[in-house]
Amino acid sequence: MSLPGVGVFGTGSTARVLVPLLKAEGFEVHALWGRSEEEACCLAKELSIPFHTSRSDDVLLHQDVDLVCIYIPPSMTRQIAVKALGIGKNVVCEKAATAVDSFKMVTAARYYPQLLSIMGNTLRFLPAFVAMRQLLVEGYVGDIQVCDVRVYGPSLLDQSYGWTCEELMGGGGLHTVGSAIIDLLSYLTGARAHRVHGLLRTFVQQNGLIRGIRRVTSDDFCFFQMLMGGTRSSSGGVCCTVTLNFNMPGSFVHEVMVVGSTGRLVARGTELYGQRNGSKGEELLLSDSGWVGPEVKEMPLPHLRGLSSMVKALRQSFQAHEERRSWARGPVAMAPTFEDGLYVQTVVEAVKRSSCSGEWECVEIMSQEPDPNHNLCEALQRNKN
Amino acid sequence: MSLPGVGVFGTGSTARVLVPLLKAEGFEVHALWGRSEEEACCLAKELSIPFHTSRSDDVLLHQDVDLVCIYIPPSMTRQIAVKALGIGKNVVCEKAATAVDSFKMVTAARYYPQLLSIMGNTLRFLPAFVAMRQLLVEGYVGDIQVCDVRVYGPSLLDQSYGWTCEELMGGGGLHTVGSAIIDLLSYLTGARAHRVHGLLRTFVQQNGLIRGIRRVTSDDFCFFQMLMGGTRSSSGGVCCTVTLNFNMPGSFVHEVMVVGSTGRLVARGTELYGQRNGSKGEELLLSDSGWVGPEVKEMPLPHLRGLSSMVKALRQSFQAHEERRSWARGPVAMAPTFEDGLYVQTVVEAVKRSSCSGEWECVEIMSQEPDPNHNLCEALQRNKN
Repeated sequence: MSLPGVGVFGTGSTARVLVPLLKAEGFEVHALWGRSEEEACCLAKELSIPFHTSRSDDVLLHQDVDLVCIYIPPSMTRQIAVKALGIGKNVVCEKAATAVDSFKMVTAARYYPQLLSIMGNTLRFLPAFVAMRQLLVEGYVGDIQVCDVRVYGPSLLDQSYGWTCEELMGGGGLHTVGSAIIDLLSYLTGARAHRVHGLLRTFVQQNGLIRGIRRVTSDDFCFFQMLMGGTRSSSGGVCCTVTLNFNMPGSFVHEVMVVGSTGRLVARGTELYGQRNGSKGEELLLSDSGWVGPEVKEMPLPHLRGLSSMVKALRQSFQAHEERRSWARGPVAMAPTFEDGLYVQTVVEAVKRSSCSGEWECVEIMSQEPDPNHNLCEALQRNKN
Repeated sequence: MSLPGVGVFGTGSTARVLVPLLKAEGFEVHALWGRSEEEACCLAKELSIPFHTSRSDDVLLHQDVDLVCIYIPPSMTRQIAVKALGIGKNVVCEKAATAVDSFKMVTAARYYPQLLSIMGNTLRFLPAFVAMRQLLVEGYVGDIQVCDVRVYGPSLLDQSYGWTCEELMGGGGLHTVGSAIIDLLSYLTGARAHRVHGLLRTFVQQNGLIRGIRRVTSDDFCFFQMLMGGTRSSSGGVCCTVTLNFNMPGSFVHEVMVVGSTGRLVARGTELYGQRNGSKGEELLLSDSGWVGPEVKEMPLPHLRGLSSMVKALRQSFQAHEERRSWARGPVAMAPTFEDGLYVQTVVEAVKRSSCSGEWECVEIMSQEPDPNHNLCEALQRNKN
């Protein structure tokens, strides 16, 4: 029984938390990639990782690396993830920047079904949401009617100008936090959004550090609705409403409520509460036993605990087999697949479209890659006439 | 110094609370109107009101009645309110059922400017909202960005089938509770909605008491957004989001949050909290000193306390003058006028249109009454061709 060696991409706050969590579960982290030698060197020293580099192949081809964890800016994710699978490595990664990128990742994952490929989306693993889903399946709330989510917190922008400021680079509340919520709601309800409506705003376009000709384009306020499931039921299925506000320094609110015909469940932070119709008050269904891992300012507790639970599940998955590259599906069965990642990205883009058009937008999952020569063909067609 | 005699229309829960509040402030309630003799008689006995009737003129023409309080189903409000003003009585009344009705009430109020005519919308008078508005004016939150309101509670339906079940009769969460919120947000922000988007649902269409061929058409879940003020600011002004859910028996949540560039204010129930950016935690700005009036199951505490404060303001307004029909504008200056009532009704109808069309709808306040012969004229036009 031996765990796979790990290579980590990224030097941001998630990578910084992930490495100690991996080590605590018995994984050996052999290699670290950073965008610059300097960043990589600095974090590798801090976390005692024997090898660091700024060249991705050096990690992907590293002989001791069997599992690659990719926590880098969204615009770079697809390239590394697809290459890692091609080289035969198991992959845990963060979301990509576009649906086209997500689709390419799905194609690669389908091509290598024997390799582990999951989205490092962490909320599904949070014990409160695992318990919530179980109770929903058991009928605690009856027929699900409404999901109501709100996440409030301080600015998501980095200290300096970078991808977090740029909507097209995958920055903003919707892409960063909303995508985790979109995934979570489909996990909880067992349904997918078919129509969405949204409104995005950038209230703070400049600050003390981002000024002059530079301007933030990513959203700091986002508000969207999703109509889930089929249109079978007369009332139109489940309505989800999500409010994200990152203009609230000094606060962190993370509340997920599911209301049904016979009761409701609410996860506040990492704790789960419930109330059945007819009962006098809320009951505490799952308390937070206290977090003993590292405290991270940039990372809210639900994400931190979820990440920790995911690493535990990874350990169980790989422990199930003798061979260090082999893994068992059971412990990671609830993890979001790359297909789930494509769904989430498709919803994100539909919400953005809706914010521009002002209309309800359909969620249509890409089934084949858009032809890169599409525009060229059109131009040729026009010339013929 | 003498207070005007009062006539009350209505035998519902609001009227039942209002009469003791009026008496406690020194008003004499001389007459009560109910839809049936029986209802009127029963409540008049209970509340020791000397005269009761089911004929509206008997109250309106009653010589001791100088102030008429109208708390009856929305579809009947316009007729009584307009007639009362015509007879020269001061009027406090609940919302009407349609914008056309509201417009007729505005016309009457304009015609008799010396008479008091206010909407009995009670949230503006709640001390927490008075304090909130004052702090907003003083710049506690900086530039207002987002208002986020949620009201959760048990079903609004009456025990038996009636107007509360009928969308067209003014039933439903949007009309009953949403209208108070729409008014409140314009009071707090000093701006009006120019575009709205909404979604209404009736999750519970039948219950133990409403069954067979009868079906509830009024909403029990409503969710709407309002874009306030002009389109001058680059970020598009204030965004308001309102979630109303009346499928939550055993709970009552009433939360109004205003987020701005430098801080935020939140009214939870009847208490006010605030946090400025940079401070560590929320501060309690106005606590609830405890309610000593009657407890009413059907009426949430913010509405009850607001109603109580409004009655106090009425007393001050009438006390300012010797003559019992005269009143001073000062104490009731913050009360919503009939013009505010028309604005609120216009927003309610725009939200309903949006829920049908799926699109953002403009809020256009009626400036002249629609021609009742409009359809006839069109028919004549068609016949000519």
